[in-house]
Amino acid sequence: MSLIVQKYGGTSVGSIERIERVAEKVIGYRHRGHDVVVVVSAMSGETDRLLGLARAITSRPKPRELDVLLATGEQVTIALLCIALEKRGYPALSYTGSQVHILTDSAFNKARIKEIEARHIHADLEAGRVVVVAGFQGIDEHGNITTLGRGGSDTTAVALAAALKAAECQIFTDVDGVYTTDPRVVPEARRLDRITFEEMLEMASLGSKVLQIRSVEFAGKYNVPLRVLSSFEEGEGTLITYEEATLMEEPLVSGIAFSRNEAKLTILGVPDRPGVAYKILGPIAAENVEVDMIVQNIGQDGTTDFTFTVGRNDYERSLEILNTQAKELGARKVEGDNKTAKISLVGVGMRSHAGIASRMFQALATEGINIRMISTSEIKISVVVDEKYLELGVRALHEAFHLDRAPGTAGRA
Amino acid sequence: MSLIVQKYGGTSVGSIERIERVAEKVIGYRHRGHDVVVVVSAMSGETDRLLGLARAITSRPKPRELDVLLATGEQVTIALLCIALEKRGYPALSYTGSQVHILTDSAFNKARIKEIEARHIHADLEAGRVVVVAGFQGIDEHGNITTLGRGGSDTTAVALAAALKAAECQIFTDVDGVYTTDPRVVPEARRLDRITFEEMLEMASLGSKVLQIRSVEFAGKYNVPLRVLSSFEEGEGTLITYEEATLMEEPLVSGIAFSRNEAKLTILGVPDRPGVAYKILGPIAAENVEVDMIVQNIGQDGTTDFTFTVGRNDYERSLEILNTQAKELGARKVEGDNKTAKISLVGVGMRSHAGIASRMFQALATEGINIRMISTSEIKISVVVDEKYLELGVRALHEAFHLDRAPGTAGRA
Repeated sequence: MSLIVQKYGGTSVGSIERIERVAEKVIGYRHRGHDVVVVVSAMSGETDRLLGLARAITSRPKPRELDVLLATGEQVTIALLCIALEKRGYPALSYTGSQVHILTDSAFNKARIKEIEARHIHADLEAGRVVVVAGFQGIDEHGNITTLGRGGSDTTAVALAAALKAAECQIFTDVDGVYTTDPRVVPEARRLDRITFEEMLEMASLGSKVLQIRSVEFAGKYNVPLRVLSSFEEGEGTLITYEEATLMEEPLVSGIAFSRNEAKLTILGVPDRPGVAYKILGPIAAENVEVDMIVQNIGQDGTTDFTFTVGRNDYERSLEILNTQAKELGARKVEGDNKTAKISLVGVGMRSHAGIASRMFQALATEGINIRMISTSEIKISVVVDEKYLELGVRALHEAFHLDRAPGTAGRA
Repeated sequence: MSLIVQKYGGTSVGSIERIERVAEKVIGYRHRGHDVVVVVSAMSGETDRLLGLARAITSRPKPRELDVLLATGEQVTIALLCIALEKRGYPALSYTGSQVHILTDSAFNKARIKEIEARHIHADLEAGRVVVVAGFQGIDEHGNITTLGRGGSDTTAVALAAALKAAECQIFTDVDGVYTTDPRVVPEARRLDRITFEEMLEMASLGSKVLQIRSVEFAGKYNVPLRVLSSFEEGEGTLITYEEATLMEEPLVSGIAFSRNEAKLTILGVPDRPGVAYKILGPIAAENVEVDMIVQNIGQDGTTDFTFTVGRNDYERSLEILNTQAKELGARKVEGDNKTAKISLVGVGMRSHAGIASRMFQALATEGINIRMISTSEIKISVVVDEKYLELGVRALHEAFHLDRAPGTAGRA
């Protein structure tokens, strides 16, 4: 008998019928002797409906009030799931983010969890109840309702699993696991049985979209085994844990992540003084824009060129800020391109093997794809290319690294 | 400059366009120098939509979870109204029942307000903000979300007005005031400029539906002047206050209330012992059924007959309980009729005048309407009749007491 935290996303609870199916699934785990805490998202379409209401008033709704509005989506689902469980004779209790006391900071629309009060829940579980918690939302120290941003329900689930010391955190979704890359782009893409937190972090942050990055960070930090599996099909899904001692069979590259909605900004000819990076990125960060890749080159005449990428939605705003900063810093020029995409090779096996980068660049060159920016870490290599080359590049790399074959067979060819 | 609490019902906030109109209305009051606290209901149709979701799962959803579900309706409206106010440059803050700390008892679906924490709000008003509070909802001492039952937003508004010591509590609705009776039944019905709390209590409880009864109780208890007015038309509406020294112009009868959804239950031949009334009504009350009229007659052979009315929705349940009680008490028989209606004359002027009852009974007899039950208080006389006679009876009485004419003209004829 162990404690499991399960999270069901918007599609999994997208209708009354599906909510009833989730109730059955939860009851199945109860029958196998598990204590279950369930985290749910808003019914699919609901968050968009609510956003539509706000946007019918203004394109820039007050962030605090937007969170009050959006938080109702998950509140509806927790109530309905509890009603479905109770109907079947299984005692259940719903909690909003505020009720279970998911304390966050005050960054409305993008809040981060600081603390969870788990006592309540333990008492409920001991009393034989299923506990159903609204994902995606919390409360700040002043009692304001906050949301964690889209996909934040995953983070809620992992944070709860950590606070409750759960045996496993299961993320039920509409895919049956983590794939070597997006099967819509590469039909040969293969489901991974296991992947490490580090790899998953790179996969998630780079756009694999199966899990929200913060949930993986949390899971890794608190060592919560995380499993991605399908709400609709049976199966073991993909287990995400710390790397185990099976390096022999480990492939060099686990997967290929990519992200379409990238924008690249460059500030050229900045007089190279200490603190210049902060002066450029500080005002961008202050606007809550997430900066992804950052590359700095030394230019001519004691100046430096500074390039970074942001989400495409933040492009206009970032460009504006950058133009202001450019004047202030005496930079020569600002350039931007919002029609770019990023492709990344990810794999803990990369660490100990040279030559991966050159094989990657060669595969892209063979297809005539021009690389606009490169950034590397220990377990990934990312390149920025023109958006139009995205699919071609991903397919070329999937083939070049033989990701369609199971590891240990010919994965290292 | 005074503090006004305004409440806008579901129809008044039934669309984005109407919410924007409410924002304009609120701003109008701000311009006239008032501090404004706004209480809103769920957008019209929303509560039914949510109920529909729950009922698609089961006809008997868990009351606690139903409240979690329904409370989202008002939460959506407070956020949208604040977004609309902020768009127009007027700082506003939304609060759920839990956030403003509307403490209630734990009777889910029918909770009663125990206490309100007003400090928050005063600080916000001093800072120049419009405060927008979710009606209809609260939180119990364990932190569970509760709702006050349908129409409870009025109660929220009045309770807030009392807690804040507001100058006036304005209930905006889709009618422009309180009428002598329902204009749909009697086209000659006339809007009253003023009415006393006592009269309004009788009018509301007897089915005039303009205001929720508990809100009028609260208003009377804390002496909060209450004004009913239209969201859509300009006008002064109807002011509800304590009776003033204008008895000279006061009519005998202020209005005619009626209620269609009545059910009558009778337990016949109960051995007449002390405590019998409690034994009959105790189990009914324990099921949270509201009993309305109660009449007891002494029967033959030391037995008593006991008749009471309940809402038609509670009929089946009450009948069941009553049958059980009848056996236990050794009663002769239980009778029920759920096709009845109630008509009531209401007026503080009645107090000092005899002959009202007989004039009432005569008017009904003239129309051939059989009276099935009578109950009187100082300021009202109620009769129960077969439902089919409802409209005819109301029209006959409206005419008999000349309610179409303004008081002081020929109201006492």
